[in-house]
Amino acid sequence: MRQFVIVGHEVPTTPDIPLDDLPGAGRLDLLCRSVGAAVFLSHGIRESVRVHLVCGDAYTVRFDTANLRHLHPDERNVAARIRDAFAERESAIGHQPADVSPGVDILRMDFEATVDRLAREGPIVQLHEDGSPLADETPPEDPVFVLSDHRDFTDAEREVLADVADRRVRVGPEVLHADHAITVAHNWLDTGGYTSY
Amino acid sequence: MRQFVIVGHEVPTTPDIPLDDLPGAGRLDLLCRSVGAAVFLSHGIRESVRVHLVCGDAYTVRFDTANLRHLHPDERNVAARIRDAFAERESAIGHQPADVSPGVDILRMDFEATVDRLAREGPIVQLHEDGSPLADETPPEDPVFVLSDHRDFTDAEREVLADVADRRVRVGPEVLHADHAITVAHNWLDTGGYTSY
Repeated sequence: MRQFVIVGHEVPTTPDIPLDDLPGAGRLDLLCRSVGAAVFLSHGIRESVRVHLVCGDAYTVRFDTANLRHLHPDERNVAARIRDAFAERESAIGHQPADVSPGVDILRMDFEATVDRLAREGPIVQLHEDGSPLADETPPEDPVFVLSDHRDFTDAEREVLADVADRRVRVGPEVLHADHAITVAHNWLDTGGYTSY
Repeated sequence: MRQFVIVGHEVPTTPDIPLDDLPGAGRLDLLCRSVGAAVFLSHGIRESVRVHLVCGDAYTVRFDTANLRHLHPDERNVAARIRDAFAERESAIGHQPADVSPGVDILRMDFEATVDRLAREGPIVQLHEDGSPLADETPPEDPVFVLSDHRDFTDAEREVLADVADRRVRVGPEVLHADHAITVAHNWLDTGGYTSY
């Protein structure tokens, strides 16, 4: 299992998302591309991947490739699924998820709760410019990568990560968009740390 | 200089592109994400990158980061720029480009003409599932990566590449979308072949 947590700091959490203006919706375009980078291969969907979009530090929208159906990689299609999730948000009570569509659900969980729960499922890997080079690290089992959107992690999020992060890694000398960093992380895992093609 | 050629087999070459249905426009969404993967860093535009979108084997739309302005990474924004290019296509005469906007122009050039011209500027690197593993290769100077969209290269395109390709490389055991392959190629070059972070 590979899991990716992406923090959307400014995305609205209501279903009135303007599909014609995803950048104006708190850079939802970036979150949509991140979902695509996490779940798609060229002609299909990856096995055993879960994506957790933490939105407005209040709700987490999850995509699980074990059950995902009819999702297309264009931003608008993914955004429509996220909009559907927010339409169900009032059904998410406590930490019980509300179903949205096959493979998609929504939870009333903030960043700390989401990451704390996932830390029990695998090592938390923080992408960080001061981290170890990916190529020097051995790919872990069941990694949970945590990334931020166009904004940096807040101080509070950094504190959470300081407590739970198993390791910090760096994808390269350039700072990449979250979706591109996810692609690099997948490729690193796909190749067993750049050893197996 | 890093250059990327992406072949769009089914994209329309007229300016009536439906911005609300990019997948329906010959999977233009994929070409737009490919442009984004090629030109953007997290908080800016890469230096010395050119993207060549070969559309319908008739026109080539070029993005040059030396002059690119006001481009945003969301698919719709990139698609609008491509639409603007097709609106200028009748001004592209012979192999002279027609200007579209800063850093964007369009040429009346098919795949073979585009690749033949670029082969004089740097080694043609074909992404191919039978190629050498990226990690075993030394990053070349001024590479020109050639990728296909959601369809495979045609027999005619393969013949062109058989003549001009300097090397074939493989990004991993999984077959990736063109935009994801571009991200992997950039990361390989950024890190000097996974050695320099």
